Amino acid sequence: MSFHPPRRTLMGPGPSDVNPRITEALARPTIGHLDPEFIRLMDEIKQLLQYAFRTENKLTLPISAPGSAGMEACFVNLIESGDTVIVCQNGVFGSRMKENVTRIGATAVMVEDDWGKVIDLNKVSQAIADNPNAKAIAFVHAETSTGVESDAAAICALAQQSNMLSIVDTVTGLAGVNVDVDGWGADAVYSGTQKCLSCVPGLSPISFSDKATEVIQNRATPVQSWFLDMNLVMGYWGEGAQRAYHHTAPINALYALHESLTILHEEGLEQSWARHRHNHQALKAGLEAMGLSLIVAEEARLPQLNAVSIPDNIDEALVRKQLLENYDLEIGAGLGQLAGKVWRIGLMGYSSNPSNVRKCISSLESCLMAQGVPLTPGAAISAVNKAYS
Amino acid sequence: MSFHPPRRTLMGPGPSDVNPRITEALARPTIGHLDPEFIRLMDEIKQLLQYAFRTENKLTLPISAPGSAGMEACFVNLIESGDTVIVCQNGVFGSRMKENVTRIGATAVMVEDDWGKVIDLNKVSQAIADNPNAKAIAFVHAETSTGVESDAAAICALAQQSNMLSIVDTVTGLAGVNVDVDGWGADAVYSGTQKCLSCVPGLSPISFSDKATEVIQNRATPVQSWFLDMNLVMGYWGEGAQRAYHHTAPINALYALHESLTILHEEGLEQSWARHRHNHQALKAGLEAMGLSLIVAEEARLPQLNAVSIPDNIDEALVRKQLLENYDLEIGAGLGQLAGKVWRIGLMGYSSNPSNVRKCISSLESCLMAQGVPLTPGAAISAVNKAYS
Repeated sequence: MSFHPPRRTLMGPGPSDVNPRITEALARPTIGHLDPEFIRLMDEIKQLLQYAFRTENKLTLPISAPGSAGMEACFVNLIESGDTVIVCQNGVFGSRMKENVTRIGATAVMVEDDWGKVIDLNKVSQAIADNPNAKAIAFVHAETSTGVESDAAAICALAQQSNMLSIVDTVTGLAGVNVDVDGWGADAVYSGTQKCLSCVPGLSPISFSDKATEVIQNRATPVQSWFLDMNLVMGYWGEGAQRAYHHTAPINALYALHESLTILHEEGLEQSWARHRHNHQALKAGLEAMGLSLIVAEEARLPQLNAVSIPDNIDEALVRKQLLENYDLEIGAGLGQLAGKVWRIGLMGYSSNPSNVRKCISSLESCLMAQGVPLTPGAAISAVNKAYS
Repeated sequence: MSFHPPRRTLMGPGPSDVNPRITEALARPTIGHLDPEFIRLMDEIKQLLQYAFRTENKLTLPISAPGSAGMEACFVNLIESGDTVIVCQNGVFGSRMKENVTRIGATAVMVEDDWGKVIDLNKVSQAIADNPNAKAIAFVHAETSTGVESDAAAICALAQQSNMLSIVDTVTGLAGVNVDVDGWGADAVYSGTQKCLSCVPGLSPISFSDKATEVIQNRATPVQSWFLDMNLVMGYWGEGAQRAYHHTAPINALYALHESLTILHEEGLEQSWARHRHNHQALKAGLEAMGLSLIVAEEARLPQLNAVSIPDNIDEALVRKQLLENYDLEIGAGLGQLAGKVWRIGLMGYSSNPSNVRKCISSLESCLMAQGVPLTPGAAISAVNKAYS
């Protein structure tokens, strides 16, 4: 029997609500992955991704798999067995980076910060001083598990000064806050489609600097993954009309990515960031009116991902269950050491709009009151409305 | 500007024409990858894949990336550095298997047969005798580059008798010809969605036997790919309502896969194979009426992939270009050592129908006549009609 999904409002850590223009594009007729019209689409996607990433990097394209594969593509292409990588960890995804490094046979030197805090630049500098021969510094610009934005420009600059490569996770960052690949001087950056691009999940946009590309082309050993070997992927995504078959591209998903990037281009990057900030401010006003607080310091908050402390004596899983069942509203649970301690409320891409903010605040208010939290009905929505006025 | 693809008829080596029911499912509203309704969908997909693969293997699921990643998943999970693998090669995809083996740091012992020929069982037996400590035998059941079906049952039996694992590529086989995972006693099998399932490209259904699963669970070293590590993937696709987040599943693509498997189940496996054979016979009749021949011996032909010898003095690329531009019809070029020597005409899944056969034969006839081939107009279509009558 065919599967008919319920219609949810997606305000978790991703996927976000998909713009109907994008699902419509997704369903267009499939053509071949070597069709001249498809090659033209690929060229447009590369240009649009350069715009989104703010880069002129030629090697800018979507990996045909989710963000985790984008992460792996960066590591397996740039790092070889025996290398040392400085890995900053202030949430779940830093530990995943460590896994990637060690599975290559390389050494991960960890720089650890508390979850919910930014990466400490002094610690990074110290790690560089202690490991002058490290090949790369890897860090998460926008931590999806905590909602923290770290100072990508500063960390990339430290890497450059030390002649190390920088590897940057901005899965949740792209299109929600400033991702300035060329301005930062980042060497390898990966993202996802299902966050602030509001496209369907399944692809990972990545970008490599010319310096990184040279490293990939001059490796001592083959890339351990055939599927993710950029030397081969380049033959398909490269320049000119002739493209060498590598794998069958996910045609329809790329229609959708193209449409989502077109929408971003129409809106404009700065306007997209401003919209994310604006709706975040309104959400924050509503949360605070209910006595709820965000775990991240104000100056380091990602507007698109709000990690909210769960009040004492609240059955947090019940709240999420009620939001889903009674309001068709999805918010995220905490991950790792924040499991049970925070909710993650996403305001990403198409999901970042006043209607969603109001829906989230009013339904959360109901659920909290049902658990005995003494709230004045309507006060939180008034705060939201005031923030928007 | 939005991308609007032309409407092609896809009769190459895949992607095949996608049933509109499937693109419709693809465009349904995105829900979360941990939504209880999505967990239910995942369970149904596993059951439907067990039906398609004819297996009771619990570890049967779609990898969130194309067939090449499915291949890599089989190798990186089952093989470790230092292992020996017997790899049969009779086309492009055998050499890709070799690449996978060597990038793990394992040794590939090659069993080579001519392209377009089946795998020689005697050579496999000899390789087993010469390499009694090999861990696995890997081969391509349905070679997409040549259209050959090799004897999967016999090769899997040889592997079993020698206590070796079998790794089977049936990207082009599944749903087009009998893929009998449990009957063969195969240990690891992977396929693709964009061939005889007529789903959009981007996923790779795989199945591991209990024996293979034990091997994966008892490895001496970690799987070199974090993204493809089945020990982790199992935590998300496994049993019960609680699923551990591993990566964000490609939600909408899985709606599409579910619909394509539902369609297959409605038609029935045997009926699907019979339909593929039937349309192949008609295509063959039309090709032969034009003096064209298939490169594969009759008893080893895959009905869904027809490799046609290109006649002397024909500009084969011009023919493909004319078919695409004048008829919106895609057929495939030759790959590797068959480049320039064959066309590959696919009759896969939804593309395997009388209307496509007639369109292909009549437009190919026109293109050949335009290059001076002396044909009697309409004779080929008459042969097709006779085959259908």
